[in-house]
Amino acid sequence: MQRTSFGDMACSIARTLDVVGEPWSPLVLRDIWVGMTRFDQLQADLGISRKVLAERLHHLVEQGVLERHAYDNRPRYEYRLTEKGTELVDLLMVMVGWGDKWLAGEAGAPVLYRHHACGEISGVDLRCAHCGQPMHAGDVDVLPGPGAAEST
Amino acid sequence: MQRTSFGDMACSIARTLDVVGEPWSPLVLRDIWVGMTRFDQLQADLGISRKVLAERLHHLVEQGVLERHAYDNRPRYEYRLTEKGTELVDLLMVMVGWGDKWLAGEAGAPVLYRHHACGEISGVDLRCAHCGQPMHAGDVDVLPGPGAAEST
Repeated sequence: MQRTSFGDMACSIARTLDVVGEPWSPLVLRDIWVGMTRFDQLQADLGISRKVLAERLHHLVEQGVLERHAYDNRPRYEYRLTEKGTELVDLLMVMVGWGDKWLAGEAGAPVLYRHHACGEISGVDLRCAHCGQPMHAGDVDVLPGPGAAEST
Repeated sequence: MQRTSFGDMACSIARTLDVVGEPWSPLVLRDIWVGMTRFDQLQADLGISRKVLAERLHHLVEQGVLERHAYDNRPRYEYRLTEKGTELVDLLMVMVGWGDKWLAGEAGAPVLYRHHACGEISGVDLRCAHCGQPMHAGDVDVLPGPGAAEST
């Protein structure tokens, strides 16, 4: 890749940050993932203003990451992850792995994952979808793809 | 996990967002990863103010994600990923996978990864570090870990 062309290229990182690129959205997804699905639960847990929370939830619903459902007749709403949203939580699991390693200190991991398939406490490993070997930032060449020409 | 206890728990997601929780930092890491390591290159590519860029770089150096090196006698500086920073780029690779799938549209992926081990164009797969089977958000139970008691 030519260095000078990278800034003009479309970028899935920049696009993803347009969806969840501020601190509250990942924490909203985290809470909904672990079962705090109602507006009032989220507001109490995160301690943010109702206005900011409502804006973030509206944005995440608009982006197709969350779905809103009325759960009584007043109505009050709860939020559920869509398939798109659930796959975004995968990203949070990888984020947790990094934070556990580099930021948790001696206290150790705040949460643990028990993997349904094997029943063990485990973490996420990054593997090549083709050959199954480890695939990290140093293990790849980055090449322009078919969508490179389109900006952002 | 008790729902009401989650907000009081330490959280590797929140900690990680303290390091890179605004849009510019991931894009700075992206650029440095693909070889735009100098201040002026970063500033030109990202189109942000020198002040904001300098602040973000300073923060990432303080956090141990980047190292600063003088590359001439004036001095001018370039930035390199530390081990901690390189492992953070893994997170960007997973972000790219999500963005490619859900946000790239018909144009397709802006960038492709060629995996050194197999030579194929491929993407990152999330696997259990213990058993090697797929490990996604729906495949785990989330349990309090040893560091759960400590706040943030």
